[in-house]
Amino acid sequence: MTSLNRQFHLVSRPKGEATAANFQLLEAPVPSLAAGQVLVRHHFLSLDPYMRGRMDDARSYAPPQPLNQVIIGGTAGEVVESRHPSFATGDLVVDMGGWQQFSIVEGGAKGALRKVDTTHFPLPAYLGAVGMPGVTAWHGLTKICQPKPGDTIAMSAASGAVGSVVGQLAKARGYCALGFAGGADKCRYVTDELGFDACIDYKARGDSKSLYQALAAVTPNGIDGHFENVGGPILDAALARINDFGRIAVCGMISGYNGEPIPMTHPALILRSRLRIEGFLVSEHMESWPDALTELGGMAATGRLKYRESIAFGLEAAPEAFLGLLKGRNFGKQLVKLV
Amino acid sequence: MTSLNRQFHLVSRPKGEATAANFQLLEAPVPSLAAGQVLVRHHFLSLDPYMRGRMDDARSYAPPQPLNQVIIGGTAGEVVESRHPSFATGDLVVDMGGWQQFSIVEGGAKGALRKVDTTHFPLPAYLGAVGMPGVTAWHGLTKICQPKPGDTIAMSAASGAVGSVVGQLAKARGYCALGFAGGADKCRYVTDELGFDACIDYKARGDSKSLYQALAAVTPNGIDGHFENVGGPILDAALARINDFGRIAVCGMISGYNGEPIPMTHPALILRSRLRIEGFLVSEHMESWPDALTELGGMAATGRLKYRESIAFGLEAAPEAFLGLLKGRNFGKQLVKLV
Repeated sequence: MTSLNRQFHLVSRPKGEATAANFQLLEAPVPSLAAGQVLVRHHFLSLDPYMRGRMDDARSYAPPQPLNQVIIGGTAGEVVESRHPSFATGDLVVDMGGWQQFSIVEGGAKGALRKVDTTHFPLPAYLGAVGMPGVTAWHGLTKICQPKPGDTIAMSAASGAVGSVVGQLAKARGYCALGFAGGADKCRYVTDELGFDACIDYKARGDSKSLYQALAAVTPNGIDGHFENVGGPILDAALARINDFGRIAVCGMISGYNGEPIPMTHPALILRSRLRIEGFLVSEHMESWPDALTELGGMAATGRLKYRESIAFGLEAAPEAFLGLLKGRNFGKQLVKLV
Repeated sequence: MTSLNRQFHLVSRPKGEATAANFQLLEAPVPSLAAGQVLVRHHFLSLDPYMRGRMDDARSYAPPQPLNQVIIGGTAGEVVESRHPSFATGDLVVDMGGWQQFSIVEGGAKGALRKVDTTHFPLPAYLGAVGMPGVTAWHGLTKICQPKPGDTIAMSAASGAVGSVVGQLAKARGYCALGFAGGADKCRYVTDELGFDACIDYKARGDSKSLYQALAAVTPNGIDGHFENVGGPILDAALARINDFGRIAVCGMISGYNGEPIPMTHPALILRSRLRIEGFLVSEHMESWPDALTELGGMAATGRLKYRESIAFGLEAAPEAFLGLLKGRNFGKQLVKLV
């Protein structure tokens, strides 16, 4: 069958901003399967902000992406050949197949390959609202922000794959949801389509003081929890507006990925407001996945969890789509359609 | 009996640094007691960094100190007259008597007046290692830093009333303790007298990078918890050195009390190292007081909890002693002896 597999390698590390020159498209033969292995043809590749952190050689929560190897990434596709009894040709599956057309997976490795059901929603949802980004939202909201009745929860990147789920979960549970997003279109989507109580266009506001004023205008009682996907001035504004004993889940610091740290302007607020701030990585909280996927799958199947995708076509489009994601050019979950 | 009570009022709020001009010494008559009241003659007044925060009018965790009223503060003394059956003349007591020679307390108000026993250690210990600062140390270490076997715990202001107890508790429980203090004398005290594993003289180091290098040199396995009494470059250095899943108790941000915020240089570390940072105020955790006082009292009574005091003499010395405390001129718990 297929003998060539197109794939992207990381061939250099960014100095400052990542560029297309850091990536190289190569072709490699698809090896034949050993006993217990499964060959997956990817239909969709997921692009996520965490990938930027792995491009650096610095200490991070994950080992750096090795140079001259296929870039790691989540994928959804179909089994095209199987030498493992649990998987058959035609099965729809999710795996960490990387930036390539095909992957070979050990069928028996725990969590490596998961069969999914597209009766109620389509395959790419398993890379977004009912996948890693959705579980990230669920964990940060449920386990770290821990809202109480009457609470207001704020979040940055509110139209994105994670933020959109944070806010919809908050609304479904009866809390107020307040988003930050970049541009009037995204803000309109967040309020009109996703049902948030309000959304602030951070691109129309210059600094944390202006962001704070906009936030104060729509949160007369302050905020009680904050889900941070970005960092920088939005985090400063949220810290200034958060009520005593507020909880902040730190999921992303996309603004700092280019090397220069963005300071937190007023850390004394941590003491003044007796805050709890916690950074987390959803892959280290596997205990949250079953409950999260049950709730998110149920909401998605009944139309109560909306999501939006930015789809790039063809593997060769992956680097540009990824660089655009880092600049907020996507609208919703960024995917690459490979088939 | 006594008819005049000397007391300090806050008469203006600081613009930038607090100065002696913010305080005014006045005399007021001691009113006669109503039924249920107790008259306490203060032997010691406690001076604590939190008082600086209350001098401002800005939102803080406590209401601002009202102008033209006696400044709030912890005191230890003796009952000189009682119209409450639970207290008798000569009882030694601790109360929040303020910056004055005498206070009148409702004997039946919960927690307002507490009889203490000086069999095993002297009265002023109840304002330090076996009082509010000690319980602060106990709560932050036990409930927020939550050390595990083999952990290393760092703390700023290690020779101070709070930090010295954090480190001694850590050592008593079998952890490594690493302190920051200002000057060679304080560092020698922290290691030689209090038994910390190491102490870094922050005054001999210019910036957070140099502090980080000194910290790295004495913590080959990094640090696992940090107790922050100061903020600024020490906090930056600790965040850079803390291991994954580290816990940071934020108890003081003394460097920022003059109005200008000191930024946290690299908040992305919260995500990179999946940290939990929590600000707290010990008066909001009354559940910790009984266990803390039992443990601290037991250690102090058997000589396993050492403490040191800087004592100013006479109420009129209180403002200068307080301003010196804010600059780290004290060595150990800062008290004013009034009798």
